[in-house]
Amino acid sequence: MKGGKSLLLNKIYHLGYAVEDIEVASRFYRDNFGARPGEPEAVEDQGLVATMFRVGDSAVELMQPTHPDSPVGRFLQKRGEGFHHVAFEVDDLEGALAGLKANGVELIDEEPRIGAGGTRVAFVHPKGAFGVLTELVELPEGRG
Amino acid sequence: MKGGKSLLLNKIYHLGYAVEDIEVASRFYRDNFGARPGEPEAVEDQGLVATMFRVGDSAVELMQPTHPDSPVGRFLQKRGEGFHHVAFEVDDLEGALAGLKANGVELIDEEPRIGAGGTRVAFVHPKGAFGVLTELVELPEGRG
Repeated sequence: MKGGKSLLLNKIYHLGYAVEDIEVASRFYRDNFGARPGEPEAVEDQGLVATMFRVGDSAVELMQPTHPDSPVGRFLQKRGEGFHHVAFEVDDLEGALAGLKANGVELIDEEPRIGAGGTRVAFVHPKGAFGVLTELVELPEGRG
Repeated sequence: MKGGKSLLLNKIYHLGYAVEDIEVASRFYRDNFGARPGEPEAVEDQGLVATMFRVGDSAVELMQPTHPDSPVGRFLQKRGEGFHHVAFEVDDLEGALAGLKANGVELIDEEPRIGAGGTRVAFVHPKGAFGVLTELVELPEGRG
């Protein structure tokens, strides 16, 4: 069942998990898997606190909403804790978005916006990607 | 928000997505992201067909149930299409399970079982891992 390499997705950049209590979830990954999540940091415009730990060439991001009426807060009320989104690294975000638009794929972001650490990011709507909220991330020049 | 490397999880081995139509989903990843999923193969004891494509050092597995009364069939009825599970590669599956059991984490498999390609696998119950169905995979000797 081995498939070939994806030509336009460099790697899984991170997985985002929605959790009720970031400290409890951090402790779980620390105690059971030797993960080393950092101190949770506020992401004000998303109404959440987040931390991450690396797994190989990828990372897991734990996200706890700071109030219920935020995107991740509403997600937790509707779906409960669990997988929230995947982010794939791409070289050419604008090219990827142009291709998706041409193919009629439903997007949340039609244009790149600025993400953490100077990245450029855009989300494909889960309706456009078989139920998986899918983020595309382009690293700043020189970090690829 | 950079956390440190996880000491016991080598990498994301794969992400499993539950889909209604594996051909349509394969075409989506092929047409939009240059992915090269192989021909779908039957996994009889799970009541599904599956294919995968590589993304960096990891893979995405697409899974379509062959009948509704199968684990992925029931998942689709309850949750709809989307992320189904994540698999992390570990060096020592028995050690990992022993640690999880000692910490009282709810497991689906208390002992390793045989997975695809001679791997040994075990699933942590989503209740034990903050809503994320989490598979641990140990590669056969020499493939690590």
